Amino acid sequence: MSSLRTLVLNNGADRRLRGGHLWIYSNEVDNKKTPLKDFTPGEQVMVESANGKPLGVAYVNPQTLICARLIGRDSKLRLDRSLLVHRLNVALSLREACFDSACYRLVYGDSDGLSGLVIDRFYDVFVVQISTAGMEAVVGDIISALNKVFLPQAIVLRCDGKMRSTEGLESYVEVVQGEVSELCPLEENGVSLLAPILTGQKTGWFYDHRLARANMQRHVQDKKVLDLFSYVGGWGVQALAAGASEVTCVDASEYALDVAVENAKLNNAENRLITMQGDAFDSCKAMIQEQQKFDVIVVDPPAFIARRKDIRNGERAYGRINNLAMRLLSKNGILISASCSMHLERDRLIDIVRSNARELDRSAQVIDQGHQGADHPIHSAIPETEYLKSITSRILPAL
Amino acid sequence: MSSLRTLVLNNGADRRLRGGHLWIYSNEVDNKKTPLKDFTPGEQVMVESANGKPLGVAYVNPQTLICARLIGRDSKLRLDRSLLVHRLNVALSLREACFDSACYRLVYGDSDGLSGLVIDRFYDVFVVQISTAGMEAVVGDIISALNKVFLPQAIVLRCDGKMRSTEGLESYVEVVQGEVSELCPLEENGVSLLAPILTGQKTGWFYDHRLARANMQRHVQDKKVLDLFSYVGGWGVQALAAGASEVTCVDASEYALDVAVENAKLNNAENRLITMQGDAFDSCKAMIQEQQKFDVIVVDPPAFIARRKDIRNGERAYGRINNLAMRLLSKNGILISASCSMHLERDRLIDIVRSNARELDRSAQVIDQGHQGADHPIHSAIPETEYLKSITSRILPAL
Repeated sequence: MSSLRTLVLNNGADRRLRGGHLWIYSNEVDNKKTPLKDFTPGEQVMVESANGKPLGVAYVNPQTLICARLIGRDSKLRLDRSLLVHRLNVALSLREACFDSACYRLVYGDSDGLSGLVIDRFYDVFVVQISTAGMEAVVGDIISALNKVFLPQAIVLRCDGKMRSTEGLESYVEVVQGEVSELCPLEENGVSLLAPILTGQKTGWFYDHRLARANMQRHVQDKKVLDLFSYVGGWGVQALAAGASEVTCVDASEYALDVAVENAKLNNAENRLITMQGDAFDSCKAMIQEQQKFDVIVVDPPAFIARRKDIRNGERAYGRINNLAMRLLSKNGILISASCSMHLERDRLIDIVRSNARELDRSAQVIDQGHQGADHPIHSAIPETEYLKSITSRILPAL
Repeated sequence: MSSLRTLVLNNGADRRLRGGHLWIYSNEVDNKKTPLKDFTPGEQVMVESANGKPLGVAYVNPQTLICARLIGRDSKLRLDRSLLVHRLNVALSLREACFDSACYRLVYGDSDGLSGLVIDRFYDVFVVQISTAGMEAVVGDIISALNKVFLPQAIVLRCDGKMRSTEGLESYVEVVQGEVSELCPLEENGVSLLAPILTGQKTGWFYDHRLARANMQRHVQDKKVLDLFSYVGGWGVQALAAGASEVTCVDASEYALDVAVENAKLNNAENRLITMQGDAFDSCKAMIQEQQKFDVIVVDPPAFIARRKDIRNGERAYGRINNLAMRLLSKNGILISASCSMHLERDRLIDIVRSNARELDRSAQVIDQGHQGADHPIHSAIPETEYLKSITSRILPAL
């Protein structure tokens, strides 16, 4: 076994790790004993507490605020093909228990013991996102491990996430194995869909809202539905498949709406789909002018709060879009209000719905609350792994 | 229309009501202008702000900390048969949209605009809980309204809740209409069950965990399941119906376990049910001694935190029972940890699971989070209407 260099932490800096967390911040390293700058990005190290106790094996990036991420607490572990195969199998067993078809997030970073790695599965097509130097260093092992555990039809590296530049990594998208078409088939809640895995957002699909979308289906039969920030129709087309009389998808991207149309066609529902290219705020204002009304409205915006300092402005933006949506809602209509901002607390989102309902002299009855699905498990010791929330409310006239 | 006496609030005391809340506390009343003691328990009043603005109609109880509860903001409203019929219909439309069979909480107090009233529906049997003097004053109208909206086979008043004595109300249980048998049929998640509506806890059944129980079904096929604080088998018998190889129900009540056996029989599964009468903590310790192991364990205790001052001791009790449960769990087993304590924060429950997993050198992966179902809607302006949480975790060896 290769011997690793040691990274020594400051006095008391082992507390987070002892609680089960996996991250080490750069100001927690004893830079006298083990200067961070001496390590190369992606290098694996032994982590020790200030008093010399071994804490586990981590990979390092001296350039980033989170300068090391624990791979495991056993000093014999290495992040290599063998460990990847093991952790892929542990991750797979959970997904196989929870889902009927092989379409899910197979690996969700820290929560699956693989910090810096995300893999979305579309049947036998695997879309891999690598966001850290430590994970990039074993990209060959990742591909090899996937081939050990599965029989991949194709493997795509979508290595174009925002985090990569801070890690000192190039941005690239590459089909490293097999062939893929522009639109990749998947299934969610029994509905057949297509995802633009090469050119769409992130891996091409957002599996995280699966449960909330399943619960939405109950409310849309013969109803008029509005899907704001629709992307390729994850909500809207599932509403069509569940019997909505008409769905309007609003998105800024013409391409995303083209894919939404393809998704509607796949479900023989293109005649019930209306697409509206444009800014969601402006589109709502225009529809309010036209006195349009919808029975069910989905508000699933991109993260309005990227960093802690954006909380205030971000909450205002969530408030504005929810207010506009409520004004388009029929009496006793259903509002599904989502947020993927880790920094927006669930209770704050409920309060945003409450206060805007109140302002419009209505009352919001929360009838369902959505969380990221089992393929985006939350690591109980890493609160940062929880980000998604949705609040389904019936908006009644005020008492 | 009958004219009502006026209840004047102190300066600034209308803020909560303006935010959408419905409660008035006794220290918020202007006792000089309108002495609380002059009102009779259950009397309906006009509520006014300090500067004379009408805020709505409420019913009063001068003896309780919450001295008034708003019925509506329109001064022409009265809590009477007509309003009850209207609000029953609004509540019914939500339940009919959300559930396939007529088994649910039909009215959930404030969230359905009927503070102090709970009605659980078991097909055409209605079990009514009245907890305030204001609602007790209209008990005749409630029965009459139920007969207007439904064709009740029976109506049972389970007026024996803890809150009643502080409201100055007698405790009683009465079948006021029709006939009921000791065990009343119901359906939940497609499983036929029986509830002891006359002598069981609360209304006889807890519909609130319906969604979490549905999600549990996915994890129990051919598995050994332990149901702690099982009551009549809400979780355990649904696990049997979903194909669990063996379920052990632990409860302090012999009678509850007898009903659990009846429920298992109804699902032709009594040969897979083991009942264990006793304290859940002691029973776990005994099973740990015997080195028993279970694949799925449900920890759904009664509220360990009744009041805010119990938080510390209550959290310790949640910690202890979750620790014991984890020690009975097979490798990679599933722990479903629930709490009905309003004062226990969801994040605290996750942290209790995390810290006890860590203590046992394991790691908890949260794969599902449960909330009260749509028949227990949360009033967005009344945080007190949210109390239920469940956390489903896969308990892995620590990394």
